[in-house]
Amino acid sequence: MINAYAAMSAGEALKPYTFDPGKLGENEVEITVKYCGICHSDISMIDNEWGMSSYPLVAGHEVVGVINAVGSEVTQFSVGQSVGLGWYADYCESCEQCHNGDENLCSNLTGTIVSHHGGFADKVRANANSVIALPESMDLESVGPLLCGGVTVFNPLVQFGIKPTDKVAVIGIGGLGHIALQFLNAWGCEVTAFTSETKLQEALDMGAHFSVDSRDETAMSLLPRKFDMILSTVNVKLDWNLYLSKLKPKGRLHFVGATLEPLDLKVFNLTEAQRSVSGSDTGSMQTSSMMLEFAQRHGVKPVIERYPFEKINEAIEKLREGDVRYRIVLEY
Amino acid sequence: MINAYAAMSAGEALKPYTFDPGKLGENEVEITVKYCGICHSDISMIDNEWGMSSYPLVAGHEVVGVINAVGSEVTQFSVGQSVGLGWYADYCESCEQCHNGDENLCSNLTGTIVSHHGGFADKVRANANSVIALPESMDLESVGPLLCGGVTVFNPLVQFGIKPTDKVAVIGIGGLGHIALQFLNAWGCEVTAFTSETKLQEALDMGAHFSVDSRDETAMSLLPRKFDMILSTVNVKLDWNLYLSKLKPKGRLHFVGATLEPLDLKVFNLTEAQRSVSGSDTGSMQTSSMMLEFAQRHGVKPVIERYPFEKINEAIEKLREGDVRYRIVLEY
Repeated sequence: MINAYAAMSAGEALKPYTFDPGKLGENEVEITVKYCGICHSDISMIDNEWGMSSYPLVAGHEVVGVINAVGSEVTQFSVGQSVGLGWYADYCESCEQCHNGDENLCSNLTGTIVSHHGGFADKVRANANSVIALPESMDLESVGPLLCGGVTVFNPLVQFGIKPTDKVAVIGIGGLGHIALQFLNAWGCEVTAFTSETKLQEALDMGAHFSVDSRDETAMSLLPRKFDMILSTVNVKLDWNLYLSKLKPKGRLHFVGATLEPLDLKVFNLTEAQRSVSGSDTGSMQTSSMMLEFAQRHGVKPVIERYPFEKINEAIEKLREGDVRYRIVLEY
Repeated sequence: MINAYAAMSAGEALKPYTFDPGKLGENEVEITVKYCGICHSDISMIDNEWGMSSYPLVAGHEVVGVINAVGSEVTQFSVGQSVGLGWYADYCESCEQCHNGDENLCSNLTGTIVSHHGGFADKVRANANSVIALPESMDLESVGPLLCGGVTVFNPLVQFGIKPTDKVAVIGIGGLGHIALQFLNAWGCEVTAFTSETKLQEALDMGAHFSVDSRDETAMSLLPRKFDMILSTVNVKLDWNLYLSKLKPKGRLHFVGATLEPLDLKVFNLTEAQRSVSGSDTGSMQTSSMMLEFAQRHGVKPVIERYPFEKINEAIEKLREGDVRYRIVLEY
């Protein structure tokens, strides 16, 4: 039996929920959860914001734990090994995207918390193809947020060939943004943070070379058009055409935040300097592995607040209120 | 003296206009115009649609002619040589974009018809750095539209690494689109045309493997999400989110048409499959040269309607009415 915390319907507080996961699949592993980060998308799924939730819903997709059982066909993991599990728990291994090593773009992806029970539980299962071995030397307590939030901001650097000579800005210094600043600094880039007045110094402390109060219209208008990439981690509507105009020729405005309001982009702002706008979420297995290795080499670490699992509803409330600095990790 | 046809104020019919261009600059050449294409952007400039016109305005930036004079420092051209001139007539040669070989993105570009007199004239001048030698074996009468429209649709294939194995669609089969179909077919791609019912067969004749009536909602909804790139050549508002949803993972919706209404893009359509939206106009000198060589090797030719220069206002009226098939070329 698995003892979880589940939402029984949209928007509700989580309740203890015990279920029988059945026989372990031959390609599956079962992980005893030690830590699990809380991501904004857990709340979006709990609230059915994206219209794809089914209940009871067990969220949690930044899992760090230890293998407690392996399926009969699993050879790459053994019981007792430390592992991580992120946004997806299986992929088809046979579509064009999987063949290209873009498992996160698989047409038949199984999300860890989409019609599948996630890591707000004492145990979680996943296909071994989606599980990442964690070196024992990593700080296991803070690694969870790297498995979704971390790879989500690392992936664009890989996908779009960001170079250490590039100038990159991050919009929003929260759960995603504070990791992005650290990665970009270690990547060698000139790093700018667009944030609120209260976080200007913290952004510098986390790796930004410049921080700009994005509500300061004068400061914003004075910025030169110098950015190779601007990475938006927020989920609100901003003046996207203003940000576009700050990209240099061939620059890219990239969204990893799930802004719901449509972007009202002026085509002229794209054509006049061959700019791009794009979006992505999470990353492939190989990108996740590179991300962990890079994070370890450079000491990139999520800044976390720890909560015991029993206080999961309190932790979720704090995240809803928006004042977490910068990521919550639940622990058993 | 140069004898031109100029707009004296926004939206007016052109009038004969004679001006003294002064002494030829040491890096300039003077070209005797033989042919000049008419592009939609000539009309946008005549009408001051982009707010950057100054009058008298001599439009015309798809110039084919013969060098009649060279400045004292010009060594790469000689009198009598056939040449072409496109959207720009000079660039700074010293900004980051120029150093990267992206002269068309130069921060101090001199547009051929932006505060500079263009090719609706018996002679036109330009810095030698912006002039392209034309092989005598080319069909000079139809090459003009390649120098702006042609390079504008060819450039994205180069910039974004389009491969012969890719599936590419073109929205709008007009002055730009009919050249795009030919280039894409020669490039080896699977080519789809989105057009109106009356042009379905013509699109196939020009190189499309499939043509789709974009007003046929059933046909549109049945299309699989298969495109690596969709190239929009139109200047009207369409259901851009529908087109986005037809791009496969990592696909790109690219604008070369000057749509004025903002794009109302849903971020989820970008993030869920790592899609991009972008825009560009014209191309670098090297891209222009490759484009001409490629066009010649593959027999890519604009389909033109010929008008004598004296009937320039009649030709412009026809273009305004939107029933040119597919590009007008003026000739002396």
